[in-house]
Amino acid sequence: MPPAPSQLAYVPFVSVENMMRLVHHFGIEQVLLELTDTVEADFRRWDLFEKTPRLASHSHEGVIELMPTSDGESFSFKYVNGHPSNTTKGFQTVAAFGLLARVDTGYPLMLTEMTLLTALRTAATSAMAARHLAPQDAKVLAMIGNGAQAEFQALAMKAVIGIEEVRLFDIDAKATEKTARNLRDSGLQVIPCASSHDAIQGAQIITTCTADKAYATILSDNMVGAGIHINAIGGDCPGKTELHKDILARAATFVEFEAQTRIEGEIQQMDPDYPVTEFCKVLSGEAAGRRDSRQITLFDSVGFAIEDFSALRYVYNKLKGTDFYQEIDIVADPDDPRDLFGMLQRAAA
Amino acid sequence: MPPAPSQLAYVPFVSVENMMRLVHHFGIEQVLLELTDTVEADFRRWDLFEKTPRLASHSHEGVIELMPTSDGESFSFKYVNGHPSNTTKGFQTVAAFGLLARVDTGYPLMLTEMTLLTALRTAATSAMAARHLAPQDAKVLAMIGNGAQAEFQALAMKAVIGIEEVRLFDIDAKATEKTARNLRDSGLQVIPCASSHDAIQGAQIITTCTADKAYATILSDNMVGAGIHINAIGGDCPGKTELHKDILARAATFVEFEAQTRIEGEIQQMDPDYPVTEFCKVLSGEAAGRRDSRQITLFDSVGFAIEDFSALRYVYNKLKGTDFYQEIDIVADPDDPRDLFGMLQRAAA
Repeated sequence: MPPAPSQLAYVPFVSVENMMRLVHHFGIEQVLLELTDTVEADFRRWDLFEKTPRLASHSHEGVIELMPTSDGESFSFKYVNGHPSNTTKGFQTVAAFGLLARVDTGYPLMLTEMTLLTALRTAATSAMAARHLAPQDAKVLAMIGNGAQAEFQALAMKAVIGIEEVRLFDIDAKATEKTARNLRDSGLQVIPCASSHDAIQGAQIITTCTADKAYATILSDNMVGAGIHINAIGGDCPGKTELHKDILARAATFVEFEAQTRIEGEIQQMDPDYPVTEFCKVLSGEAAGRRDSRQITLFDSVGFAIEDFSALRYVYNKLKGTDFYQEIDIVADPDDPRDLFGMLQRAAA
Repeated sequence: MPPAPSQLAYVPFVSVENMMRLVHHFGIEQVLLELTDTVEADFRRWDLFEKTPRLASHSHEGVIELMPTSDGESFSFKYVNGHPSNTTKGFQTVAAFGLLARVDTGYPLMLTEMTLLTALRTAATSAMAARHLAPQDAKVLAMIGNGAQAEFQALAMKAVIGIEEVRLFDIDAKATEKTARNLRDSGLQVIPCASSHDAIQGAQIITTCTADKAYATILSDNMVGAGIHINAIGGDCPGKTELHKDILARAATFVEFEAQTRIEGEIQQMDPDYPVTEFCKVLSGEAAGRRDSRQITLFDSVGFAIEDFSALRYVYNKLKGTDFYQEIDIVADPDDPRDLFGMLQRAAA
């Protein structure tokens, strides 16, 4: 056996199993609440971050993306795929992992699964926006699209906003059943609905999170009354939208990063001069959030690398003093940095 | 404990330790020879590959890069840093890891250390070019710059070209001592030299691989005689070159990917219309390689994502039937792909 690598060679790796242990140890609502605060803290220093467009490799079946960013101290990237037909093969539509690294040395700090972590950070980002844009004392959430993201959304809105009732609809009744079953003991009142019209009754927040890769109309104009906050997270790539454009014409629309959302978000349906507000400007006070109780607000969310950065930073800090990781030797670390070959040679002995 | 993840959740991970075991099991010269053939096979189907510029995050101390590519069946990327001052802190200047994935599902096939593997693939790429560009029956290699890459270069040139003598020079005599010591039992005649003038005596191939991040003149014009093949691998980013431009004016210059080399290679010193030949065209017969025994040929190598792809593909194939990897569960794999939350919930039990 080769000599054991030095401490510098080791990088903490958080497996899916350990991510689940971490979430249960701290409690999922607590994790969602803290993660929301972490995402918001990073949105408050938005200008500091390197904002590179995601690097996408498209194929007939789907897309593989690398999403990097940096705040000058830490660098992060996420690897994530999007393959709509994967579910028919027993694979996840979206699988992801990510890395946090030190900018000053370029060395990795942590490697982690990010399929679960992406679900958590997406819900946290939605909750962050709703905390500032939804009508005050919102208690009812309509959740249209009951796929893999649904429960995370519902629990984040409960933990952060104080949502008490969640109304579920999906064109696939089995998806609604699954979500209702999973939320049975959550403390939320869970109402499965037979239509999206039913689902939105009495809701102050409507979250759309459907998976169809098409221009769809999950919400039509007459369904959306005054004062509603819409959290649109399913329309997140070119050719994929969920809202009728007449809703957008009436709404005050908030986005993560305008350049990306113009291509990927609901607003791809609108003219290039359709007005939007970057959400970070609401936090900094440069722009208004919700103006009055009758305004329709829309968070047109497509997911951005800074949210992954926040999630990685959060998990990295939570790992301290726990055993929710294993160490993997992914970085060669010879005693003399120039003597890589000597390290290899000595390993043969 | 959560239930064990299904087989789909596991990805083979090749640690530094296992990479060293793999190299010793097959033998380093055999690995370099086979890797040279694998890189060449991919250069022969160059047009098939997605050629994205590397994604670089620059800081005061260095750079972190993501280098992706795809042949339509497999996707790969490498994470690699370049931090010249790292050696003073006991870190490697360059540390790397990489991933191979399936394009049709987006799922990872293998994660591996790539610090060692990059050293191997860089040497293999040099040997591939030398096999087609160096004068016939080259027996003597001058190796200027005796850092981490030196021994790999020497052994690849021995295994692929039949080099018998390697002449070493570095401005730091300790680096030359280290390299000579490591190559003692390699079967090569190793000649430490007191100057670069000494080192190039009788050499048919001159490899320059120095680390200084500056416009340097490792080789000046009068040092390079007729018929020499120069393998320039140290000049690989803007502001970093090794050769006097008068050498370039006399040489036939071959590059990996012209668009990248114009920015990063030795040819950044030349006018934009300075003629270069993409090496893949030599392999396909579209362009001539070496024309005669008096020509000076230059392989201006900066490193390209396709070489990493080849290296990942090579290691992935070599893993079969071995235990040179461990399985890590980096991909969440719920029984029902839409029931990510249910998987998390059941893990609490």
